[in-house]
Amino acid sequence: MNHSEKDKEQALFEAGIKLGSLYHQFVGTPLTLQNKKAVEDAISKSIAAQPFVESIRVQIHEKMIEEELNSVFQYTELKGKMLDVRLVVRCGKSKVFASLQWDEKLKYPLMKIDQIEEE
Amino acid sequence: MNHSEKDKEQALFEAGIKLGSLYHQFVGTPLTLQNKKAVEDAISKSIAAQPFVESIRVQIHEKMIEEELNSVFQYTELKGKMLDVRLVVRCGKSKVFASLQWDEKLKYPLMKIDQIEEE
Amino acid sequence: MNHSEKDKEQALFEAGIKLGSLYHQFVGTPLTLQNKKAVEDAISKSIAAQPFVESIRVQIHEKMIEEELNSVFQYTELKGKMLDVRLVVRCGKSKVFASLQWDEKLKYPLMKIDQIEEE
Amino acid sequence: MNHSEKDKEQALFEAGIKLGSLYHQFVGTPLTLQNKKAVEDAISKSIAAQPFVESIRVQIHEKMIEEELNSVFQYTELKGKMLDVRLVVRCGKSKVFASLQWDEKLKYPLMKIDQIEEE
Repeated sequence: MNHSEKDKEQALFEAGIKLGSLYHQFVGTPLTLQNKKAVEDAISKSIAAQPFVESIRVQIHEKMIEEELNSVFQYTELKGKMLDVRLVVRCGKSKVFASLQWDEKLKYPLMKIDQIEEE
Repeated sequence: MNHSEKDKEQALFEAGIKLGSLYHQFVGTPLTLQNKKAVEDAISKSIAAQPFVESIRVQIHEKMIEEELNSVFQYTELKGKMLDVRLVVRCGKSKVFASLQWDEKLKYPLMKIDQIEEE
Repeated sequence: MNHSEKDKEQALFEAGIKLGSLYHQFVGTPLTLQNKKAVEDAISKSIAAQPFVESIRVQIHEKMIEEELNSVFQYTELKGKMLDVRLVVRCGKSKVFASLQWDEKLKYPLMKIDQIEEE
Repeated sequence: MNHSEKDKEQALFEAGIKLGSLYHQFVGTPLTLQNKKAVEDAISKSIAAQPFVESIRVQIHEKMIEEELNSVFQYTELKGKMLDVRLVVRCGKSKVFASLQWDEKLKYPLMKIDQIEEE
């Protein structure tokens, strides 16, 4: 196998690791409209600290927080369906673009490969 | 039982909930010297979002991050012994001051009640 | 303060720690009707391993798993509202009975003190 | 791109997701020699419940639990370095064998691709 094939394989594997890690580390985090930005910031900077991450953007859907806010305690917790994540992982010359987003048809917070690039 | 006794009991229970939640939600978070502040910020704002929290201060020991940084990947993950947390919970007129801190004698990240106040 | 008052305070604090830990450690665990028993078993034995736990019973509502099963992938994840936990913590001569259960009125997975006993 | 190339890419991505999920869901779980089997069982059955998992074997190193047991409280928590996981993911005709294991040279709980098979 050539070198760039190996890079691509690893980049795909690493992209999966990052999204799985993100989801299971942070789902359950206490959440309000007030701490949303701090939570997004910590998630993106934590995952960015892992090997091979070129960039990451994390957004939590404000409208879903509002819908889920408990009426008495005025807070909720981070749920998979609230997350919108765009991730770029690079291994050698291979770049994998992947995302985590609620899929309305599957009713599922879907992690998927969006694009693979070779330099 | 009088009302303030009930308040005190609840404040003690709630203080425990917050520290247990904090520990098991965030231990394992990918950590470097660079994202330390963002992680501290998200932890304190998340726990502060929960009911009955009057104030919280979260510090991650910088020196311990340095000691634990992986030499190849230059990152580590949040461990219980890195955490120094001071929490104040209030229920009615009762305030409980509690903390989470590494106990060198017990070799344990100890959660404890520091003080109970009645107004 | 007498000794048994100290015991009671600690038992209340420890009961809170256990329920907060349980919730934030295990919420998000991949779940089906098939692995429900194994997950209940691991949760109860893990929390029972912590200091001061006299007994614990963990049930995950089967009906809620069924309602939440993704129609394509046939699985869901552990959510707070699925949990029914009864916990007994003992410190010295004080016993605290606490629970975690969905509260239909508050729309909230409520942790509460059910009873305090002195021997 | 041909169909089997797509399958391989997805299998690599999914294998990463599973190992990242496993690590960040379960690291931190309270652990003793007594509940080790129940925790291994819940982890393997939880990850096996996720899409595309053909098989998984989870072992927690008993010797490491012993080394880490707190001398007063006689328990520890699941740490990355204790885990030995073998995973097989299948998408269509592609199978990816991956593992999570402590790497003594890197001092790191390494997730890696062990083999890729096409049928």
